[in-house]
Amino acid sequence: MAVTPIYVARPIVPKVDDFIAHLAPALETRRLANGGAISADLELRLSELFRTRYVNLMSNGTVAIEIAAKALNFRKKVITTPFTFAASVGALIWVGLDPILVDIDEEYLTICPDAVSSAIDQEVSGILGVHVYGCPCDVDALDAISKSSKIPVLYDGAHVFDATYNGRPVVGYGAATTMSFHATKQFNTGEGGAVVTSSLEVNSRVSILKNFGIESEDLISQLGINGKMSEINAAFGLANLSALFEERARRTTVSQIYRDNLSEHNRIRIVPLRPGTVGSSGYFAIRLPVESGRPLRDKVYLALRDLGIYSRKYFYPLISDIPSYTAHMSQLTFDLPNAQRAAMEVLALPLHGGISDEDALFIATSVKRAIDD
Amino acid sequence: MAVTPIYVARPIVPKVDDFIAHLAPALETRRLANGGAISADLELRLSELFRTRYVNLMSNGTVAIEIAAKALNFRKKVITTPFTFAASVGALIWVGLDPILVDIDEEYLTICPDAVSSAIDQEVSGILGVHVYGCPCDVDALDAISKSSKIPVLYDGAHVFDATYNGRPVVGYGAATTMSFHATKQFNTGEGGAVVTSSLEVNSRVSILKNFGIESEDLISQLGINGKMSEINAAFGLANLSALFEERARRTTVSQIYRDNLSEHNRIRIVPLRPGTVGSSGYFAIRLPVESGRPLRDKVYLALRDLGIYSRKYFYPLISDIPSYTAHMSQLTFDLPNAQRAAMEVLALPLHGGISDEDALFIATSVKRAIDD
Repeated sequence: MAVTPIYVARPIVPKVDDFIAHLAPALETRRLANGGAISADLELRLSELFRTRYVNLMSNGTVAIEIAAKALNFRKKVITTPFTFAASVGALIWVGLDPILVDIDEEYLTICPDAVSSAIDQEVSGILGVHVYGCPCDVDALDAISKSSKIPVLYDGAHVFDATYNGRPVVGYGAATTMSFHATKQFNTGEGGAVVTSSLEVNSRVSILKNFGIESEDLISQLGINGKMSEINAAFGLANLSALFEERARRTTVSQIYRDNLSEHNRIRIVPLRPGTVGSSGYFAIRLPVESGRPLRDKVYLALRDLGIYSRKYFYPLISDIPSYTAHMSQLTFDLPNAQRAAMEVLALPLHGGISDEDALFIATSVKRAIDD
Repeated sequence: MAVTPIYVARPIVPKVDDFIAHLAPALETRRLANGGAISADLELRLSELFRTRYVNLMSNGTVAIEIAAKALNFRKKVITTPFTFAASVGALIWVGLDPILVDIDEEYLTICPDAVSSAIDQEVSGILGVHVYGCPCDVDALDAISKSSKIPVLYDGAHVFDATYNGRPVVGYGAATTMSFHATKQFNTGEGGAVVTSSLEVNSRVSILKNFGIESEDLISQLGINGKMSEINAAFGLANLSALFEERARRTTVSQIYRDNLSEHNRIRIVPLRPGTVGSSGYFAIRLPVESGRPLRDKVYLALRDLGIYSRKYFYPLISDIPSYTAHMSQLTFDLPNAQRAAMEVLALPLHGGISDEDALFIATSVKRAIDD
């Protein structure tokens, strides 16, 4: 048994002095919210990292999706994936949109471009793709669909903070990409998120939408809400940037230990990255088969938990299996065999900078032992 | 001219050491979000202050309204006031509700109970009252309407942090009250807010709704979003509680100087507090008449601005005069004479702990000089 519990994620935290050094100007000037020098600095640093023109900080990744969808003029139907965290689809429904769920690629678990094409009708105004476990959607195929249909593609990029695809940060694809900087993500601001885009127009709309639609003191030009990040969270993020690279090195090592110890096992499939993808260190996901109707994944999950190792059935349940969500959707039947299967097979193993080589080996061994038990 | 600009609001900020002392346990345990000891502590401290059973921290005051409206099962029409900040009505529209705007009391500027009664029909499922400048709505009349109609009343309590009415914190009235802890409010967490309620059921629903509707690991029982406050903001708030009482003393003094110097002027009306109200120090609002079709308020606003004194036309524009908002509403005509008038007459003067006696006297004198000019 693990001496102390090993959780699936562990936030990076800054050195206190670093954090205070970044926050001090805001305490001095008492500018704590509604933008400011600290947010501007973090937006600049992130836009350099992402090699995109605009990073627009938000209060969290869910609000980022709500606001990005509005900024891209999504109305009525939005084609998206059922294989995602509740927030992506929930945010669409929350703002009155109607998600249409289509199946995912069997191998990479991202939204299937052919299924997207087939689902397009007159009422579809947007596509929301979700990159998963560091693996990008088939961005080239989706880009082609977007161009020919004139329907913008928004990506949920919460899983691809540091991933590149064909030499370019994954975050840069599509009309816009939303990010989550929640505590459990690779990079965090405690709570937080962003809308990333290269379009001046989209970025301007996002800025107005996240501040109640206020364009100037006497003019409220759009229906908006409060989606702003405080300077306090931005300072926390700036200080956390320093911790990022050490964290990534550790995660890479842990992933390699998992890979070395699990890839040869005949009942384990490591969820692959699309060829051309480099550098993602957000998640390590494996698939375990359903055998005689029983998900081996659930058995391993419980066995690990008994050892104090907290893995995660991620993503489970599938959005199409959540009645409180589907009740708000016009879609009545779901044809999602790949997603259904993935939801029963995938297990995300602990991956963070607090996992030692010994821990990683212990986890890998425990997974195999639980399977063979 | 003021030597340095005087803004309408100035956030309270904690001592750095205080803040870090409150935050340290979260950095140590790396529990930064999804609740935790710091949020729980702040919720307890605020519930003692508000004398209510539950304070449920939120990412901001706008999300608090969205979630409270859902927790109270608001559907279709919600009767509310046009005399409020964009966020109150905007939050309702954002989640697909249909605000019905009724007029306000001529004197206290809060929603008129008779107008509420007249607007009730089969599609009305909720009432959103907004307490303004520390003055509570006519809570007794609204409570009676709620009882007889079985329609719950939600209050936006952003303006009544420390006000009491008939010996009881204003925040405690209604089925629930939303709070904003934005930087510019009397008490702040940078960005933040809360839903305050004495109902266990409402509080439980709020807790689930602010965490994506997740009831337990495998059960998502409701459609929800992310409305959570991070532990970082909660720690900032805990440290700010210490600064609150000194701030309030200063604000009370400044208000008194305004009152002593402005109350006798024949063209100035100080917005009154409903009898029975005590202790509010959030705002100081005056009314200046529209003369020959020209708002004296605007003249004073500009004259003050030229002196480096930033007052605020608050609330202006009226919600019914914002086409980007009314476009989403079913109401086609508005009969709001009291609100229309207030929107052209009200001016909120600077009120915060950074205003000296001399500043306050200078501001009061400048207001009178601008009027008489």
